[in-house]
Amino acid sequence: MQAKTPSESHTVMTDLVLPSETNPLNNLFGGELLARMDRAASISARRHSRRVTVTASVNHVAFNRAIPLGSVVTVEARVSRAFNSSMEIYIDVWIEDRENGHRSKANEAIYTFVAVDDTGKPVAVPPINPETKLEKERYDAALRRKQLSLVLAGKMKPNDATELKALFIQ
Amino acid sequence: MQAKTPSESHTVMTDLVLPSETNPLNNLFGGELLARMDRAASISARRHSRRVTVTASVNHVAFNRAIPLGSVVTVEARVSRAFNSSMEIYIDVWIEDRENGHRSKANEAIYTFVAVDDTGKPVAVPPINPETKLEKERYDAALRRKQLSLVLAGKMKPNDATELKALFIQ
Amino acid sequence: MQAKTPSESHTVMTDLVLPSETNPLNNLFGGELLARMDRAASISARRHSRRVTVTASVNHVAFNRAIPLGSVVTVEARVSRAFNSSMEIYIDVWIEDRENGHRSKANEAIYTFVAVDDTGKPVAVPPINPETKLEKERYDAALRRKQLSLVLAGKMKPNDATELKALFIQ
Amino acid sequence: MQAKTPSESHTVMTDLVLPSETNPLNNLFGGELLARMDRAASISARRHSRRVTVTASVNHVAFNRAIPLGSVVTVEARVSRAFNSSMEIYIDVWIEDRENGHRSKANEAIYTFVAVDDTGKPVAVPPINPETKLEKERYDAALRRKQLSLVLAGKMKPNDATELKALFIQ
Amino acid sequence: MQAKTPSESHTVMTDLVLPSETNPLNNLFGGELLARMDRAASISARRHSRRVTVTASVNHVAFNRAIPLGSVVTVEARVSRAFNSSMEIYIDVWIEDRENGHRSKANEAIYTFVAVDDTGKPVAVPPINPETKLEKERYDAALRRKQLSLVLAGKMKPNDATELKALFIQ
Amino acid sequence: MQAKTPSESHTVMTDLVLPSETNPLNNLFGGELLARMDRAASISARRHSRRVTVTASVNHVAFNRAIPLGSVVTVEARVSRAFNSSMEIYIDVWIEDRENGHRSKANEAIYTFVAVDDTGKPVAVPPINPETKLEKERYDAALRRKQLSLVLAGKMKPNDATELKALFIQ
Repeated sequence: MQAKTPSESHTVMTDLVLPSETNPLNNLFGGELLARMDRAASISARRHSRRVTVTASVNHVAFNRAIPLGSVVTVEARVSRAFNSSMEIYIDVWIEDRENGHRSKANEAIYTFVAVDDTGKPVAVPPINPETKLEKERYDAALRRKQLSLVLAGKMKPNDATELKALFIQ
Repeated sequence: MQAKTPSESHTVMTDLVLPSETNPLNNLFGGELLARMDRAASISARRHSRRVTVTASVNHVAFNRAIPLGSVVTVEARVSRAFNSSMEIYIDVWIEDRENGHRSKANEAIYTFVAVDDTGKPVAVPPINPETKLEKERYDAALRRKQLSLVLAGKMKPNDATELKALFIQ
Repeated sequence: MQAKTPSESHTVMTDLVLPSETNPLNNLFGGELLARMDRAASISARRHSRRVTVTASVNHVAFNRAIPLGSVVTVEARVSRAFNSSMEIYIDVWIEDRENGHRSKANEAIYTFVAVDDTGKPVAVPPINPETKLEKERYDAALRRKQLSLVLAGKMKPNDATELKALFIQ
Repeated sequence: MQAKTPSESHTVMTDLVLPSETNPLNNLFGGELLARMDRAASISARRHSRRVTVTASVNHVAFNRAIPLGSVVTVEARVSRAFNSSMEIYIDVWIEDRENGHRSKANEAIYTFVAVDDTGKPVAVPPINPETKLEKERYDAALRRKQLSLVLAGKMKPNDATELKALFIQ
Repeated sequence: MQAKTPSESHTVMTDLVLPSETNPLNNLFGGELLARMDRAASISARRHSRRVTVTASVNHVAFNRAIPLGSVVTVEARVSRAFNSSMEIYIDVWIEDRENGHRSKANEAIYTFVAVDDTGKPVAVPPINPETKLEKERYDAALRRKQLSLVLAGKMKPNDATELKALFIQ
Repeated sequence: MQAKTPSESHTVMTDLVLPSETNPLNNLFGGELLARMDRAASISARRHSRRVTVTASVNHVAFNRAIPLGSVVTVEARVSRAFNSSMEIYIDVWIEDRENGHRSKANEAIYTFVAVDDTGKPVAVPPINPETKLEKERYDAALRRKQLSLVLAGKMKPNDATELKALFIQ
């Protein structure tokens, strides 16, 4: 299968923060942002694979900044690396200041999706060919994250997670 | 502040999978489950802290099983450990078979919430006093997860993450 | 069919009052609470019958207390009595004070559900075997409620509603 | 305060049954219909009282007919009787056949609303002056329903519920 | 096919403006009103045609008045003219003052629907026989609007739009 | 005020068609698409004006193609011309084929928004400086559309609508 670039799966979802999506402090509920990121990531995964895709896992997500009611939020998703039938999707979330238009990073997240056929069985997806410096960094880190995920799930011995281990032992 | 037990923040949210929450395979959207877990976790964090609480982060979440339209889903949340103003919430998700009533684990997730005052400033919360064997295991693992989170965020050197490091070096 | 206890169908639905569910006084809409109670009751009816169940009727429901935006609301449902294919579900609604954690009764409701097969035809359900004092009281009252319901629908003569009549004639 | 007729508070809410409002049998959820009726009744109560109104109670509601996905449903609400600050709202629900246009009764319901000022305190509402034969029947029955409601709530002795008692003793 | 009158497709949808439907100024979102008008118009088209109907186009819609949170909004739809398989639906939107009950026009809109069979293929609908003065005016104007629509879509030469041309050349 | 280009207000909203947004033929409801376009257009108007903006009108919108459940829909909005406090927003809607990734135009729409201050009073916005050939065509046509809108609203005599009149008289 021919490799694709992250930009081929680049997905932009800009929308408002609506009143029904806010918590008692009038900021976007964490759960609503998780749901929006999931939809954007699923579109990105579909663009890469041309298949039905389902959420396999969500990596550690930090909510560093509150996103107030009425904000314009942009969720950007790109496939950062592919492994057989699974794809790591890297998500950047931006909010913009209404008055000066300045766009700032609200948070990042990493989801993993699996491509499936109509019966729900995993199917192979194209590999990723990263182009920019950022895309290459994310591509490399994706392998460490996969190892970490396998270690945490008990499917890989810490000792075999060579990429990850190197972080702890110099 | 007096310690509390995990059972004091135990929260049970049982609900149906509604048609508006399903993906093209007629299973619950990952994003919807993330949103439900966020609400249950926020109630659990509030029960522990008696404060307004906001989502700080979501740990790795694996979606091991598809949850079909019409399922009865139970999201159970408990505070597993508290650190100053933050609380780790451990979530268990169960589905039950309509015909034989058998309840099985669909997935687990770990969210971190922070207690805040009315201006959004963090405030201290009571410590946790685990009781059962499972609660104690989750309490111990919470420290490793916190270290991992700090390492991944670049706020702790891998070398200082003693609990975590021990996983990789025997 | 073997009898079941009310605790076997005990269903707990704890959730927040979201901004999209409030009336102009910033309290939960009566209609939204009715919808939540319906979903909890339908799960309880399903747990008792292991069947698809549909709402047959709602008994008198009093909304004694306003439930403000941001409240934690717990809807608890249990089958209180079964009659052939129908089940009376008794619902208790609780709200809790965020600051002191005190839980208080917001209201009660009684729904009737019918178990049906895939074509919508009623099917028999197990009888109920009440255990606690409260369960026994609700079990006994269920028969009077059923007679009242039949009298109001013109399907039973007031004179034949022996249980009910006893209320008015000493 | 000058009396009003039921037709002055007549409210018509015609809408479709949407996919997000259906149960596993593809019929309208009982809870969704209860919520629609609550909104229609609240508009009717407001038209009668020119006040903010809140749901006080829901009388016995029977769901005699399933309402399938895609149906056109008309909820009609009218104030049937007023008592100081409370209003009984009588609701008729109709569905119509798409092919022959025939309109048939799906069910009836009776809600009670209370008019309140901006602090939530009850305020007086105009009395009702029924005009048609049906309006007069519903007006008379409203008193019996009120007595029944008071008896069931333990606020009136069965012996004092003269209108109601007459049903059981000839 | 026998002609029908506009009153035979008259559809009334009265509902509240809910918190989840408002913009940062606490008024009904334009998009939400467009969606409500679409549902009312689709019911009207269905009542005229007794068929499945789909939105074909929306004419120029002006939002002259803001509609605040908590308002009672009435959307009234009637078929104003039919052309083979398409129907023009004329929509009047009213809001009413809570205190004095005065009803005033918020805006008007014109939608076009097409009747289709189960495969989505257009099917013929009955002609319209206007009765009142207003219905006749709208019936006549509908032809000019249709010509304008065809001209704007490049499907009719301006020179052939006789009704429309007359507006510009005296 | 300094002119801006259409690309400075370019807004991209990519999202799925969810089950709760479909009609009986399993295609996106016209009303839901109108609501999405309204939100995208309001963000575009805000990016151009750095103000709160409200929907003033919607031009003729044709729904040429059905958009099936599960489709990926991209709504793109750009300010095409500004007039004092109002902005014409040109919207292009695309759907993409899941299997071959081909992107095709589903429909176009034109909304007008007005920039307002916190009291709802109109405020001036920057002029538009079109760059591409398409942007220039849309910029020129915006004047004709504005004249047509004024003529239809009875606020301009057909004879004064010079740009529009030229269409009908050669």
